[in-house]
Amino acid sequence: MQRRVAGKLREFLPERSVLWQDEDTRPYECDGLTAYRRLPMVVALPETEAQVQQVLMACHAMGVPVVPRGAGTGLSGGALPPGDGVLLSLAKFMRVRRLDPAARLAIIEPGVRNAAISDVAAPFGLYYAPDPSSQIACSIGGNVAENSGGVHCLKYGLTVHNVLRVRGFTAAGEAIEFGSEALDAPGYDLLALAIGSEGLLAVVTEVTVKLLPRPETARVVMASFDKVEKAGDAVAAVIAAGIVPAGLEMMDRPATRAVEEFVHAGYDLEAAAILLCESDGSAAEVEEEVARMKEVLAAAGATRLAVSRDEAERLRFWSGRKAAFPAVGRISPDYYCMDGTIPKKRLAEVLNFIAAMEKKYRLRCPNVFHAGDGNLHPLILFDANDPEQLERTEAFAAEVLEKCIEVGGTITGEHGVGVEKIDQMCVQFSPAELEMFRAIKRAFDPQELLNPGKAVPTLARCVEFGRRHVRAGGLRHPGLPRF
Amino acid sequence: MQRRVAGKLREFLPERSVLWQDEDTRPYECDGLTAYRRLPMVVALPETEAQVQQVLMACHAMGVPVVPRGAGTGLSGGALPPGDGVLLSLAKFMRVRRLDPAARLAIIEPGVRNAAISDVAAPFGLYYAPDPSSQIACSIGGNVAENSGGVHCLKYGLTVHNVLRVRGFTAAGEAIEFGSEALDAPGYDLLALAIGSEGLLAVVTEVTVKLLPRPETARVVMASFDKVEKAGDAVAAVIAAGIVPAGLEMMDRPATRAVEEFVHAGYDLEAAAILLCESDGSAAEVEEEVARMKEVLAAAGATRLAVSRDEAERLRFWSGRKAAFPAVGRISPDYYCMDGTIPKKRLAEVLNFIAAMEKKYRLRCPNVFHAGDGNLHPLILFDANDPEQLERTEAFAAEVLEKCIEVGGTITGEHGVGVEKIDQMCVQFSPAELEMFRAIKRAFDPQELLNPGKAVPTLARCVEFGRRHVRAGGLRHPGLPRF
Repeated sequence: MQRRVAGKLREFLPERSVLWQDEDTRPYECDGLTAYRRLPMVVALPETEAQVQQVLMACHAMGVPVVPRGAGTGLSGGALPPGDGVLLSLAKFMRVRRLDPAARLAIIEPGVRNAAISDVAAPFGLYYAPDPSSQIACSIGGNVAENSGGVHCLKYGLTVHNVLRVRGFTAAGEAIEFGSEALDAPGYDLLALAIGSEGLLAVVTEVTVKLLPRPETARVVMASFDKVEKAGDAVAAVIAAGIVPAGLEMMDRPATRAVEEFVHAGYDLEAAAILLCESDGSAAEVEEEVARMKEVLAAAGATRLAVSRDEAERLRFWSGRKAAFPAVGRISPDYYCMDGTIPKKRLAEVLNFIAAMEKKYRLRCPNVFHAGDGNLHPLILFDANDPEQLERTEAFAAEVLEKCIEVGGTITGEHGVGVEKIDQMCVQFSPAELEMFRAIKRAFDPQELLNPGKAVPTLARCVEFGRRHVRAGGLRHPGLPRF
Repeated sequence: MQRRVAGKLREFLPERSVLWQDEDTRPYECDGLTAYRRLPMVVALPETEAQVQQVLMACHAMGVPVVPRGAGTGLSGGALPPGDGVLLSLAKFMRVRRLDPAARLAIIEPGVRNAAISDVAAPFGLYYAPDPSSQIACSIGGNVAENSGGVHCLKYGLTVHNVLRVRGFTAAGEAIEFGSEALDAPGYDLLALAIGSEGLLAVVTEVTVKLLPRPETARVVMASFDKVEKAGDAVAAVIAAGIVPAGLEMMDRPATRAVEEFVHAGYDLEAAAILLCESDGSAAEVEEEVARMKEVLAAAGATRLAVSRDEAERLRFWSGRKAAFPAVGRISPDYYCMDGTIPKKRLAEVLNFIAAMEKKYRLRCPNVFHAGDGNLHPLILFDANDPEQLERTEAFAAEVLEKCIEVGGTITGEHGVGVEKIDQMCVQFSPAELEMFRAIKRAFDPQELLNPGKAVPTLARCVEFGRRHVRAGGLRHPGLPRF
């Protein structure tokens, strides 16, 4: 089969664009969710849209699954390769096709890195707003697949709010174009449907993004709190005061300590938690807003307040937050990053719950949050080589995700479902809702060849998950899914 | 059949909630697109969600079509009743269920008027941003169905950007809930899919909207231009200068003249076109932005500049724009309002095209535009009692819509496709794209009972439309659809 598929692709792809030997396909065995690995049967690296279409048509004709892959930085295993299919890498789609400063948009290929968009727009005073922490590595194609956010999404929105149009192909190789350069388009909103669909509906080969005028200036207020609950309440107070911060992030002490050793961001290590609250706009506006932020944060019980004095200091304050994941990676052999969202007012309750879980499972869990939009990233520290620790980690994570659902939140804010949270989808959604997801999948891809086994669980999978829940008896949480 | 359906609904609806006699159903024969009228077989006016579900289940069991209706202000015939089915009015769903100022959201029933949301939020310093011109009459349910915009959508977005969650029922009466109080949700983005789906996918019975802090102040700059092209270029210059106006509207002289007699907004009647350019925010920010707007508009050749001195004058400047449709209604027996969108840089070209069409078809056409987002509302003046004039109007409109497509725009910006633009959908989209729309419809409503014959044309309809295009020979544009 491997030989047949590789041979078929070689009919229209050059030799260097079809990989099938283990040493060549090894780099593609996982994405950022390294706990799951699988060698793809074949890797295809097309360079033109016509080649992408040919790959899809050929696989469709052979009934072979296809998994699209961007930069491979995803954290939920969305690009885990198919053992019996083709991993379709868009890495060679690296060009900026058009930059139109007057219309404030850029037309780019999916392999372009997130940060590179702002780099090319900078000479025109423009930038691309969504800034996931992985922005120096992740690609816009992956951002579209996962509907990525970033520390500024409270004010500037997620990928779905900053993309105007995508072009690409369905599983059968049919050309599609969703959205337009206009604010709205007739017909169903297939653009929003495609964004965040985790590569299950179409393969995107061109993305038109909105560019924004770079704010004249930006400053960040760093506030210390002696109790995590107080920091949570301060977030609510900022929002209630009518302020829309450009960014509003929270880190607890275990997180600041891990980070500070690594990047020396200047964080207050005595604080139980710190908030980073950014204002951007014209100089007058920022001055006024920063003053209001300080007032509200002080009234909410901040024990220390610092405001970035210049751009270098502002970037330094953010550097710690952006480096939180690698910093945690330095103090623990492995870490497991969660991505739940919760209503902001339940923040203190969920933080206390996580603290209780730390005791119950005897595992440390530093917390970083996109506080403004209620998106939590608890990081459970463990050693994957110890199967017993891995089991405790999985049970810990499952309890936290189900707690998120219980308080009215969701199991993923921006990292996607992928393979990682597919069982929790059975808890998050009713059988009727899941059936609607499946019907939509069939509308795009009736043979279910595109990224199969990800994001939307089959009915059988949910039945099996329910059975394990019951059978496990004492162990209520059966852990993460097995593949 | 009528008796059978009415009798069935009476099993669970009180007598006053089931109408079937002509004099009772007459008020429901059309919506804002008055050129199309049809008496519904039966009108249902449920008062509870359980009753909505029962109506849908009963109609589903009988195979009877259902058309949902909000305030009936739609301009594309989306609520045109089914002659052989049930018109489902949500007019009795008038309650605000919850207002949460801290979370900045309101949970409301679909019959609540758009402007009423801001009224109830006002005591908390909050408001609901989308403001269609019909906002004192139109309901949030209709806004969701049409993805309504308004004069402030350039800065604050359309309905889809301001709704967090909808609850309701499918055609089969299954309960659905799309979205959440969080910024993003796992699974496909069915919320965005439902918003703007023109009542074809689900009936919405509850809407959770985002509320925004009311800006401290707002002022509007009114700029006069001696050529329409200059006004178009000034729009581009404002955008290119990095300004994001809260509103950016354009009216040509025929429009300002029609309006001025009616509302005395203080418009410059010598100008070939005027722009209304609003700034909102803190006092300092507005002062600074208004100064920049004036500078850019003056450099773009404005012959007169006026800035609203107080809130009363600001509202007066807007009053003319918001009253444009009724004002035009006073100077012509009938008018036909178009709703195309175009790339902003093609504005002058499309305006010249419309002027040429005025000559070709010997019909006047004042123009009002949401200039900031390229959404045109040309208003063709005619007398519907003269069949020959009606025919010219239809041909005029069809040429303008197809011009919009030709320059890379779309056939509807915010009024929806409904029955009015259903044939142009065959031009706007490829057969493969339309088939995808149909597949999505089937995923939600396999029996195609919800609002049939609207928004998405059948394959047969497009084939027939293509045949008429060819057969008409000399007359390239066969006019508006017949029902």
